[in-house]
Amino acid sequence: MAAVAVTLVRRLLRSGLRPGLCGAGGRELGAAPRRAIGRVAVELDSSTGVAVMKMENLPVNSLSLDFLTEFLISLEKLENDRGCRGVILTSGAPKIFSAGLDIMEMYGKSAEHYAEFWKAVQEMWLRLYQSNMVTVAAINGSSPAGGCLMAMCCDYRIMAENPKYSIGLNETQLGIVAPFWFKDTMVNTVGNRATERSLELGLLYSPPEAHKIGLVDQLVPEEKIQSTAAAVMSQWLAIPDHARQITKSMMRKPTVDRLLAHRESDIQNFVSFITKDSIQKSLQMYMEMLKQRRG
Amino acid sequence: MAAVAVTLVRRLLRSGLRPGLCGAGGRELGAAPRRAIGRVAVELDSSTGVAVMKMENLPVNSLSLDFLTEFLISLEKLENDRGCRGVILTSGAPKIFSAGLDIMEMYGKSAEHYAEFWKAVQEMWLRLYQSNMVTVAAINGSSPAGGCLMAMCCDYRIMAENPKYSIGLNETQLGIVAPFWFKDTMVNTVGNRATERSLELGLLYSPPEAHKIGLVDQLVPEEKIQSTAAAVMSQWLAIPDHARQITKSMMRKPTVDRLLAHRESDIQNFVSFITKDSIQKSLQMYMEMLKQRRG
Amino acid sequence: MAAVAVTLVRRLLRSGLRPGLCGAGGRELGAAPRRAIGRVAVELDSSTGVAVMKMENLPVNSLSLDFLTEFLISLEKLENDRGCRGVILTSGAPKIFSAGLDIMEMYGKSAEHYAEFWKAVQEMWLRLYQSNMVTVAAINGSSPAGGCLMAMCCDYRIMAENPKYSIGLNETQLGIVAPFWFKDTMVNTVGNRATERSLELGLLYSPPEAHKIGLVDQLVPEEKIQSTAAAVMSQWLAIPDHARQITKSMMRKPTVDRLLAHRESDIQNFVSFITKDSIQKSLQMYMEMLKQRRG
Repeated sequence: MAAVAVTLVRRLLRSGLRPGLCGAGGRELGAAPRRAIGRVAVELDSSTGVAVMKMENLPVNSLSLDFLTEFLISLEKLENDRGCRGVILTSGAPKIFSAGLDIMEMYGKSAEHYAEFWKAVQEMWLRLYQSNMVTVAAINGSSPAGGCLMAMCCDYRIMAENPKYSIGLNETQLGIVAPFWFKDTMVNTVGNRATERSLELGLLYSPPEAHKIGLVDQLVPEEKIQSTAAAVMSQWLAIPDHARQITKSMMRKPTVDRLLAHRESDIQNFVSFITKDSIQKSLQMYMEMLKQRRG
Repeated sequence: MAAVAVTLVRRLLRSGLRPGLCGAGGRELGAAPRRAIGRVAVELDSSTGVAVMKMENLPVNSLSLDFLTEFLISLEKLENDRGCRGVILTSGAPKIFSAGLDIMEMYGKSAEHYAEFWKAVQEMWLRLYQSNMVTVAAINGSSPAGGCLMAMCCDYRIMAENPKYSIGLNETQLGIVAPFWFKDTMVNTVGNRATERSLELGLLYSPPEAHKIGLVDQLVPEEKIQSTAAAVMSQWLAIPDHARQITKSMMRKPTVDRLLAHRESDIQNFVSFITKDSIQKSLQMYMEMLKQRRG
Repeated sequence: MAAVAVTLVRRLLRSGLRPGLCGAGGRELGAAPRRAIGRVAVELDSSTGVAVMKMENLPVNSLSLDFLTEFLISLEKLENDRGCRGVILTSGAPKIFSAGLDIMEMYGKSAEHYAEFWKAVQEMWLRLYQSNMVTVAAINGSSPAGGCLMAMCCDYRIMAENPKYSIGLNETQLGIVAPFWFKDTMVNTVGNRATERSLELGLLYSPPEAHKIGLVDQLVPEEKIQSTAAAVMSQWLAIPDHARQITKSMMRKPTVDRLLAHRESDIQNFVSFITKDSIQKSLQMYMEMLKQRRG
């Protein structure tokens, strides 16, 4: 068991995730969750009908339960605002778009907590993937795992062509398996074979590689990413909302329905996996190592 | 309502469709439909077993009920002719392959008429997509909406590399939604992601762009399009008919079965959409604008 | 009937298959099947956990019932060996990876024999496509039909960039239809449209063409194919087995389930096709022609 745990920890460290990633750096270990305000900065330009949602869950925009909750509330508000037709999703954290799911939410908690957390992750995907608004991801940093999923939910993806950034569903590298709806979303984006290879190897792609397989639609110099996102958004908003929304639903509904049909069992799968002794042991060692590095 | 209509009309005009497109220029407004003969010129070379079907519903080969009927009869004749193994589908109209569905068929008619028209559109797709003959599209002009659908039904697509031509399912630009079987046909041709982006934006592709995403298989200088089509046809006819036909059916049957299973509801959807006041109003204004331009 | 047969024979000869391919050259015509040993040379490196399976059913590694049986036994042994985590599949025959199904198994035998043969072909696909081990194809020669299928079953495909080699599901060229699970496997590898065109025309691709459509993942100079396969294997073995295996199953299970649901009818289809007089006549003439050429 210990050997398994050590191996997993080594993999986590080798996998290109800097200490502080996966949320462990986001708050003091053991501290009670704070319902902080301002982790998602929303700016709506009423003249264009375009909102910018800037993720600011420092240092790495890890998807904690609190952050997901705030993200969902912000998104819902915009969704219900007739003055808002499009959202640009981007990051206020340096060098990272989002590090994905917060490991802290997966360690030392109750089964109820894990279930609640996973439901929030599902909800994020359901809302973002089906948004009635035009969604453009301005990927101004690395975007592994859940961060990549968020980007793939958008209608269009622009990535800064910084060679230090990478994007991909790299779960397998950490000994974890991407859920079927992560997989479905990737198949819809880059096709079956690229997804198969990508998921089996847990690949993180450089911006040019990501562009080549179609994981992102466009690369731009880092300083131009926000202006490009605004320009792309104008192009999308030139299309009548109603026709675009029906078309989007036609394209994505079958994938959404698959999760809706298996939502409960998907939660149970997650809970029974994450409560395994070996997995908990691994996570513990990983976090202790991070503490020492920082200490 | 009026505002909606004006917006739609502006979009129609902005969408790159010249006046005269979408069939409104095909005959005098208000005139009774003529069952003209010779809108589809068929020439069968009995030595090669290859027929050329040249669409000649001037000026823009819009898919009116009359034209679809004549097209279906011509296709059926060839299908039943043991001497015919392949069809090259091309246009006798200058600069346009086909402008797609005839707007005149969608305005000021009875629900029965709309249902009959839509059934003919379905029938065209069903017959062409499943043809036992080898079908090669020689796309010698622009090919929006229903025109693009016809091309996608063929086994192989050759397009003239004239920068003035474009091809795509641009329905969304006009505030309309491509039916699910248009979408399925495009997914089968260019994959899920290219279809999603293409349909949500109602994209019309230049020949090089269309070639890049796989919407057409080959680009040739305009003067070589018919000879290239003939050469490609020879390559396809070198394959035993029986094995090719079974293979084609294996590839396309699931897509066909999806429409067959929902054929009636698909007709009802179309009729209830097109009989909406707002849509009728928009079409009326669009056609009056075309009249003035021509007057 | 004779005309049909002659046509088929001509096609077989024209199709780029050299005499001796399709297994007819593998043993003396009419001789009783030998349960030869050593048609699959297996070398397991216990320090790396990687086995090399070298197919040595000379001259062209045609997939006879004996060979398939030996192949399956060898694969099963490795699958059950905890010391083996990956398999490199390659050929010991010069210039050919595998010529595909052995025509001798399809001629002049009983319906029971055909059924047994086809079940073995299915079994090969089921085991190889779902292997828990990492499977890398080192394609060091031509790989038509069933040979291409074997390669497509692997997790990764490396091909020698020798212009004399080709790969593809060319069944249609021989008047035969690839079964639906061959088709499904190809769609999973290169997408729907490339598969449609490929199967309808029975295309054999040169290495650069195969690489371009994604039928193979990588091209290398012939002398580097084994070392490249070993290097690629290391990359795959860096991934935790358990996570990779679950991911692989998630990607491939729906395709596998489709054959499992129709396994019996698929066997019946094959038997009723191959027992047709016209097909048997064609095969007879083909084999006599091969005899004369060699005589």
